[in-house]
Amino acid sequence: MEPEDPIPRTVEWRDGAVRLIDQRELPGRLEFIDCATVDELCQAISSLAIRGAPALGAAGGYGVALACLLAATATATGAAAGGASASAVARAAAEAADRLVATRPTAVNLAWGARRVLAAARAAAAGAAEGDAGEEVAAAALDEAERLAEQDVADNRALGRHGAALVPDAARVLTHCNAGGLACVGYGTAIGVIRAAAEAGKAPRVWVDETRPVLQGARLTAWELDRLGIDATLVADVMAGSLMASGDVDVVVVGADRVAANGDVANKIGTYSLAVLAAHHGVPFYVAAPTSTIDLATPSGVHIPVEERSPDEVRRVGGTTLAPPGIAILNRAFDVTPAGLVTAIVTELGVARPPYDKSLRRLVEAAPHQRPLRAP
Amino acid sequence: MEPEDPIPRTVEWRDGAVRLIDQRELPGRLEFIDCATVDELCQAISSLAIRGAPALGAAGGYGVALACLLAATATATGAAAGGASASAVARAAAEAADRLVATRPTAVNLAWGARRVLAAARAAAAGAAEGDAGEEVAAAALDEAERLAEQDVADNRALGRHGAALVPDAARVLTHCNAGGLACVGYGTAIGVIRAAAEAGKAPRVWVDETRPVLQGARLTAWELDRLGIDATLVADVMAGSLMASGDVDVVVVGADRVAANGDVANKIGTYSLAVLAAHHGVPFYVAAPTSTIDLATPSGVHIPVEERSPDEVRRVGGTTLAPPGIAILNRAFDVTPAGLVTAIVTELGVARPPYDKSLRRLVEAAPHQRPLRAP
Repeated sequence: MEPEDPIPRTVEWRDGAVRLIDQRELPGRLEFIDCATVDELCQAISSLAIRGAPALGAAGGYGVALACLLAATATATGAAAGGASASAVARAAAEAADRLVATRPTAVNLAWGARRVLAAARAAAAGAAEGDAGEEVAAAALDEAERLAEQDVADNRALGRHGAALVPDAARVLTHCNAGGLACVGYGTAIGVIRAAAEAGKAPRVWVDETRPVLQGARLTAWELDRLGIDATLVADVMAGSLMASGDVDVVVVGADRVAANGDVANKIGTYSLAVLAAHHGVPFYVAAPTSTIDLATPSGVHIPVEERSPDEVRRVGGTTLAPPGIAILNRAFDVTPAGLVTAIVTELGVARPPYDKSLRRLVEAAPHQRPLRAP
Repeated sequence: MEPEDPIPRTVEWRDGAVRLIDQRELPGRLEFIDCATVDELCQAISSLAIRGAPALGAAGGYGVALACLLAATATATGAAAGGASASAVARAAAEAADRLVATRPTAVNLAWGARRVLAAARAAAAGAAEGDAGEEVAAAALDEAERLAEQDVADNRALGRHGAALVPDAARVLTHCNAGGLACVGYGTAIGVIRAAAEAGKAPRVWVDETRPVLQGARLTAWELDRLGIDATLVADVMAGSLMASGDVDVVVVGADRVAANGDVANKIGTYSLAVLAAHHGVPFYVAAPTSTIDLATPSGVHIPVEERSPDEVRRVGGTTLAPPGIAILNRAFDVTPAGLVTAIVTELGVARPPYDKSLRRLVEAAPHQRPLRAP
């Protein structure tokens, strides 16, 4: 049996609601939000209370299950009581999936999780007799969402073991943003690699990029590594080049928000600069991403939409305004790292190496539960 | 006659004190500090109330002049009145120069300015008759400090004109930190190039790196460009790579804290990453630095001491703590960009191109008032 994790689950089903760690409050306070409606969950996603590709996948799945449950309950107790319809519940699931997917356009897992649970709801509705109650559709949706969340933790542990084999003893590992337990249901992808290396006795030391503008590195990765007892040093993003030049970085490990079929990687803004710097210094650049992040339907990085977020993320930190009020601000949330700068992509099913068009397809096809879904 | 500058002088002599813009208060408020003692000035320099290599040069010069004036006055009015000694004033100047230089180890201009004025004080003291009053030494020191400050503005205007010739029409210019009027006595070096391009009708548009951790880009460069009416867009430092990849950067222009004899450039942390990115994308990378920043006594970048500053600069912004209390932080204030990544170095006397060992020496030798000084 696995020991209890020092990081609580990022997202889980609790008493008929989707419970999230409110990541906006970290590292100051560990607080939870219970989303009892799809609107509340959409709001939590938009405001980055929850973020990270795999976590968004689970949240999307739970959100669709929540919509099913609310629709089934409303039908059973509302004005039309007595005629709880399975197909009406499936329609509510589809509507919720659309709203959830629209909250964050870059992360493919959100769509993946929402559509996976939607497919389960539709299958249950299709199997139901005419006029059957919607409760069984809701139960099937929740089952699928729970399976998806459990799978995330198991996949990350497997991914971590594959990745740890790439990390030398006592390696100085640089990571960007937060691809930790907080970006997933638990354990983490890039941090999963670091955790697994630590569990294997390799004693990694970690450089944590603070990751402006939302500071997921300073706030979340530093918090996780501190709780995990892993040696970590926080740096401003601008210091990464200097650290590589002084020979203080052995490997870079980052997560991904979407991996295209050719191996191009969309991830937090700043990832691309790290990849260029790593190539310049001969430092291996690894991407840790479950196969659910690989989107074979996206041929290359140019097809990945890059979200622009509010200028206020750059303009203000806490109560402090950093810039003059009149100044224009551009705030791209992601960038795309071309496959040619990526040394390897680590998944729960093994390590993909170039040429990625072949190696990624092979991994995704080996993961039947991960096969690409078309938009509903 | 030059039109009045919309940016007040960063440092000037006013009523027997060194008056500085308190840059810690920008962009919120434009406030001034009057330093009436060398201690107050050292404190202002250490706390970054004033920063920027050329500004520190002028501050160092005024600081030594201030020490001379205080010593001359104290001798004339103190217990030992009647024996005001020129040599005692020169000794006070040397002591002040040492303390000023120790406040910031990387910026060569600080030492340059302090020693230049010290040399003037010593020359005046050497020319004085036995038992002469120190007032004339103090007057000579202040004269030299004022000359040095006036020269800074004139040099920056000349530097700007040389640099503007390298900026294409309607260029998108990326700059880092603040090498503006606020980093000098006035006009600016990297921003001087942008101003001169704007004055020449080239309508540059500027990407301003916010420049963590102290945010000189967001706070100071954005404020200057806003006051100057130059089109500017603020970005988080991590976005520079993405901007270059999307073809939105035509040239990079940065300042320098010290240029070694071989053309290696010490500048604000993050400059090196920009240089690597610029080379990767074929974007010209220009360094704007007056000849006073060129240190022929430093053979290469490995000989430049790189200051580490307080972890609190990374840990906190305003009243907000960004990171968990236990986390280690490394905060290098500068990095070194190897000469091989620098397209050209723009000075007030012209543009140096590789090989820099020859071109820089030629420029410095053409600037007799800039010739290197040995430590006193």
